[in-house]
Amino acid sequence: MRGNTFGKMLSMTTFGESHGDSMGVIIDGMPAGLSIDISELKEHLKRRAPGNLVATTSRKESDHPEILSGIMDNITLGTPICVVVKNTNQKSSDYDKLKDNYRPGHADQTTILKYGIRDHRGGGRSSGRETLARVIAGYFASLVVKNVKLKAFIKKLGPFEYSGEISADMKIGSYGMPVQINNSDIENYLLKLKNEGNSIGGIAHIVIENCPPGLGEPCFDKLKADLFKAIGSIGAVVSVSYGAGEDFATLTGKEITANRKNFSGIEGGISNGDPIILSAIVRPPSTVGEAAKEGRHDPCILPRVLPVLEAMTVFTIADHFLRQNAYQVGLNHD
Amino acid sequence: MRGNTFGKMLSMTTFGESHGDSMGVIIDGMPAGLSIDISELKEHLKRRAPGNLVATTSRKESDHPEILSGIMDNITLGTPICVVVKNTNQKSSDYDKLKDNYRPGHADQTTILKYGIRDHRGGGRSSGRETLARVIAGYFASLVVKNVKLKAFIKKLGPFEYSGEISADMKIGSYGMPVQINNSDIENYLLKLKNEGNSIGGIAHIVIENCPPGLGEPCFDKLKADLFKAIGSIGAVVSVSYGAGEDFATLTGKEITANRKNFSGIEGGISNGDPIILSAIVRPPSTVGEAAKEGRHDPCILPRVLPVLEAMTVFTIADHFLRQNAYQVGLNHD
Amino acid sequence: MRGNTFGKMLSMTTFGESHGDSMGVIIDGMPAGLSIDISELKEHLKRRAPGNLVATTSRKESDHPEILSGIMDNITLGTPICVVVKNTNQKSSDYDKLKDNYRPGHADQTTILKYGIRDHRGGGRSSGRETLARVIAGYFASLVVKNVKLKAFIKKLGPFEYSGEISADMKIGSYGMPVQINNSDIENYLLKLKNEGNSIGGIAHIVIENCPPGLGEPCFDKLKADLFKAIGSIGAVVSVSYGAGEDFATLTGKEITANRKNFSGIEGGISNGDPIILSAIVRPPSTVGEAAKEGRHDPCILPRVLPVLEAMTVFTIADHFLRQNAYQVGLNHD
Amino acid sequence: MRGNTFGKMLSMTTFGESHGDSMGVIIDGMPAGLSIDISELKEHLKRRAPGNLVATTSRKESDHPEILSGIMDNITLGTPICVVVKNTNQKSSDYDKLKDNYRPGHADQTTILKYGIRDHRGGGRSSGRETLARVIAGYFASLVVKNVKLKAFIKKLGPFEYSGEISADMKIGSYGMPVQINNSDIENYLLKLKNEGNSIGGIAHIVIENCPPGLGEPCFDKLKADLFKAIGSIGAVVSVSYGAGEDFATLTGKEITANRKNFSGIEGGISNGDPIILSAIVRPPSTVGEAAKEGRHDPCILPRVLPVLEAMTVFTIADHFLRQNAYQVGLNHD
Repeated sequence: MRGNTFGKMLSMTTFGESHGDSMGVIIDGMPAGLSIDISELKEHLKRRAPGNLVATTSRKESDHPEILSGIMDNITLGTPICVVVKNTNQKSSDYDKLKDNYRPGHADQTTILKYGIRDHRGGGRSSGRETLARVIAGYFASLVVKNVKLKAFIKKLGPFEYSGEISADMKIGSYGMPVQINNSDIENYLLKLKNEGNSIGGIAHIVIENCPPGLGEPCFDKLKADLFKAIGSIGAVVSVSYGAGEDFATLTGKEITANRKNFSGIEGGISNGDPIILSAIVRPPSTVGEAAKEGRHDPCILPRVLPVLEAMTVFTIADHFLRQNAYQVGLNHD
Repeated sequence: MRGNTFGKMLSMTTFGESHGDSMGVIIDGMPAGLSIDISELKEHLKRRAPGNLVATTSRKESDHPEILSGIMDNITLGTPICVVVKNTNQKSSDYDKLKDNYRPGHADQTTILKYGIRDHRGGGRSSGRETLARVIAGYFASLVVKNVKLKAFIKKLGPFEYSGEISADMKIGSYGMPVQINNSDIENYLLKLKNEGNSIGGIAHIVIENCPPGLGEPCFDKLKADLFKAIGSIGAVVSVSYGAGEDFATLTGKEITANRKNFSGIEGGISNGDPIILSAIVRPPSTVGEAAKEGRHDPCILPRVLPVLEAMTVFTIADHFLRQNAYQVGLNHD
Repeated sequence: MRGNTFGKMLSMTTFGESHGDSMGVIIDGMPAGLSIDISELKEHLKRRAPGNLVATTSRKESDHPEILSGIMDNITLGTPICVVVKNTNQKSSDYDKLKDNYRPGHADQTTILKYGIRDHRGGGRSSGRETLARVIAGYFASLVVKNVKLKAFIKKLGPFEYSGEISADMKIGSYGMPVQINNSDIENYLLKLKNEGNSIGGIAHIVIENCPPGLGEPCFDKLKADLFKAIGSIGAVVSVSYGAGEDFATLTGKEITANRKNFSGIEGGISNGDPIILSAIVRPPSTVGEAAKEGRHDPCILPRVLPVLEAMTVFTIADHFLRQNAYQVGLNHD
Repeated sequence: MRGNTFGKMLSMTTFGESHGDSMGVIIDGMPAGLSIDISELKEHLKRRAPGNLVATTSRKESDHPEILSGIMDNITLGTPICVVVKNTNQKSSDYDKLKDNYRPGHADQTTILKYGIRDHRGGGRSSGRETLARVIAGYFASLVVKNVKLKAFIKKLGPFEYSGEISADMKIGSYGMPVQINNSDIENYLLKLKNEGNSIGGIAHIVIENCPPGLGEPCFDKLKADLFKAIGSIGAVVSVSYGAGEDFATLTGKEITANRKNFSGIEGGISNGDPIILSAIVRPPSTVGEAAKEGRHDPCILPRVLPVLEAMTVFTIADHFLRQNAYQVGLNHD
């Protein structure tokens, strides 16, 4: 069993090498009869795409999703939905020099260790480009749990840190931080990093509101466990936590239990209906030095990771919603 | 699909309510022909059991594992191994007052939200007692990857913190911290907490040495993603990270990549053969105040969580080892 | 992944060697809040047990099911239900002579080919005794789909054949054939076979009434495909069919479609609400000659297979019912 | 969990409605480093395609497989292989009259019962066209078990029946029967049926030689059980058996065990290395009367089902081969 499928009742199976013919995804387990809006789907993809920000990559990949199955007249049929995005912009030659260059933290070397072969043209399956399939799947998942509100934003990026109120309605600037943090300050910081051939990571938060209570399956498929996996499966994520996070390592039990919000909306691994707060540490890109000064490299991928965090989160919740729903049988056994 | 099974090629399915008849586990996918040593298994269980430390619980549960299947003459048959531990010490009356007491962070309320019914006698499936099934499974998993060396220890507990060298051979005191930290200082601290009806959490590290390279399945079943889930599925864990952990949120790309060790032994989600470092934040027990002063409550469960962390980690590695092994087919075509 | 688990949303995982400590099963995915009746469960087990018929085995195994988890006050908790039956009657010595005797059609030799080791004491996992775990699981499954009516009976046994009307209400004699076939004729036939050290197989029918429409998942988990697997997983079954069965190989399309009943209640692999008819060919026991004349060997196992056929069938239907139910989400997206 | 995925370690996930944009399949779990030959793949597809025989359909669909991922320079990368075939020839208008015409035995009505919606343009997922995805997957599976020899042929079609020797090397005519049966006799029979607007079914055999011993997982994933499911998941199959098939219902135990070949190469559900014989009854097409006289309807689909039977069989064997291989760990624990 390879690991290209995520989810049980709602599942996504992704495929495609970054410099092969195309990237794509099959979403299986969509309930029948849901309306889709392809322009909304494209909006999601645009947020993930490189080249939209001054300080980030200029690889202008044009990501046109083609729906091959599962939809008729913009309505889901209940059959598997396959969406494909062609790789129109592969410049494999750019990558030839990468053939024997194993970047630290990347899958370059470990892919050889695992398979004995790799597509060296651009990261293959481990390319960040794989995440567009996740964003597509996240859009469809959001249709299953339409009332759930979800927002990912950057809490910390280099010297910038936000520590105000958190809600799914908060306003976010173009670099992914709450608007309280000056956007052009971030831009200048990132441009400076890029000019130096350097990069930076940070911390993202995900807020989930209106999550139905009762989601999460003891003992191993606790909602938090599956969210940790969902988010931990994103290449650049090195840490995941929920609720009060690292405060749990320092505050006493009396301090923690004094405020139930420290647990946010997950108790015993199961959602209780309250807002859920997740945190993820995203590492800085490994490409540094002269190579990093080229246009197509991001000095920080956090802004582009946000829609991926949202996609993996909403997908996990929609999957657990269907799992829980299975057992809500109208059992009247007088 | 309920969530009581963990693992794909090597799987554990746990069952049992803490105050029901018994707790147990089926380990399926054990290769045939392995020798087992029941006394070693009992050693693992003893580390997890309460009542062995001055400052922790005095519930002297006697955990006697009975092997019901899968073993003949101390050799694995390749068939499912079922191990059961009777609950000999259930004092349900102790728990009657808990019937309508929903402890913050516990599954008390969410179990009702999920199932509409719960075994109020002592946590049911969400009791820490469920982890003994995991420890049993971990023992069997360790037989599959005998060369892997693994150690969990406490990095931070209240005011105590260890920041020296890390290896799977380091010496650990009876409270779970490296011997460089004075054991009776910890004991005094915990006794004081208990007398105050208070509790504390902290941070644990897990070191894995001799992990075979090539483990982890792109894109969703990355080794780190499955370890995050494995560890995140433990009730008291609120955060998981690997490698340099929170340093990834502050150091620049140049600083991080300057030392490949920052990634420890996972690159691109796949093991590279180097030692792997994981961190987990464990929250303080929710039972505080007068109730916490009773003997059977731990002011800190970190020491008892360590064997569970080791069990979940080695189980994940053994499972991925079998998964990777499946594809090592002697394919000679021509 | 070993093959000891059946079902997706409702699953059974069986364990136990026939001459080990015990046999058992975990049923996971039971909805919470269902009432169970342990005496009904015992009735099911009695039908499967040997020793109840003159002409069949006299091994008086006493099968006492012990429920270890998942039930409180005779109500399901939604947690895994583990039921264990001790093997009280193992006479391993009886089987020592079987150590190097590989019976045709049995797993004796193939178990060695597969695992390199086997429990020779009595069939191990391949013993017919494993089916008691299935019967237990079938009882619980029947609680999930209480309105479904189900009956297995023998259509053909040696010279006896029933070809009258079929319904889930038909009366069945103690040897498993409809009462229209004289019971003592069957008994005399079987006694004669036994005295000759011979054995016989035959054909069983399973009738399913009130199966909810819409069950079965295209394309691979069609209801018929999963029923074929469920029934085909019983050791002695060598053939499975549905509806008009072998008539499909001889009648023309015009003849077949002239009567929709030829398809019984499955069209395109999905249930349509009509009664479903399944057929299974059960082979004669392999033990023949002098050994077969001993009391504990059945000249025909068809009567004892009937409750196993019912169990596997109702389990499959309950599983698909929960799967289908998962997608019945109250989706109102105005 | 919808049912569009088959296999555990080697899996195929199919997608596509017959009159949507395209049909396709993801094969996941292919070992890395295998050479593929696209022309061989096309040969397999051609056998399944309609329009190649005088007496069968004239819908000249041109099935051009496009490989979107998982292959570089004709070598498998170990990543998911996605293959897509465009539907170039959809004449939806042909099917408008089918909108409210629920053909007996078809999924027409049950699809509505299940999903509340269906793609009426031509069978949707239940179209025979879905099987091309299976044939593609079967080609890749055959690369995993290159030494296995496999042949499907027609044993019985209308008045024609073959009862000679069976082997994977036997010569088969263009209508799928052994060459001992006169090919033009079959053709004339089918043409006559077509002129009458009638149709016919029959029986197919599958012979498997060189199957590695030890495949099949007790107790539920016995090789026979998974083969029953694999073959039973094909729309037109109504019955599956192995070995001596219906003789098991009439011969005595002494007669059956006198010739071990009656079990063919499966004992106790596990392969023993001997040739395996499977049988499948395929029903006549439901389209009869005037509609059936149009060119595109087959009076008998058995010839076209043969490559699908082979594909599902070899896929099941390759999957079990990888499963069994996972547990062949070099365990030296002395």
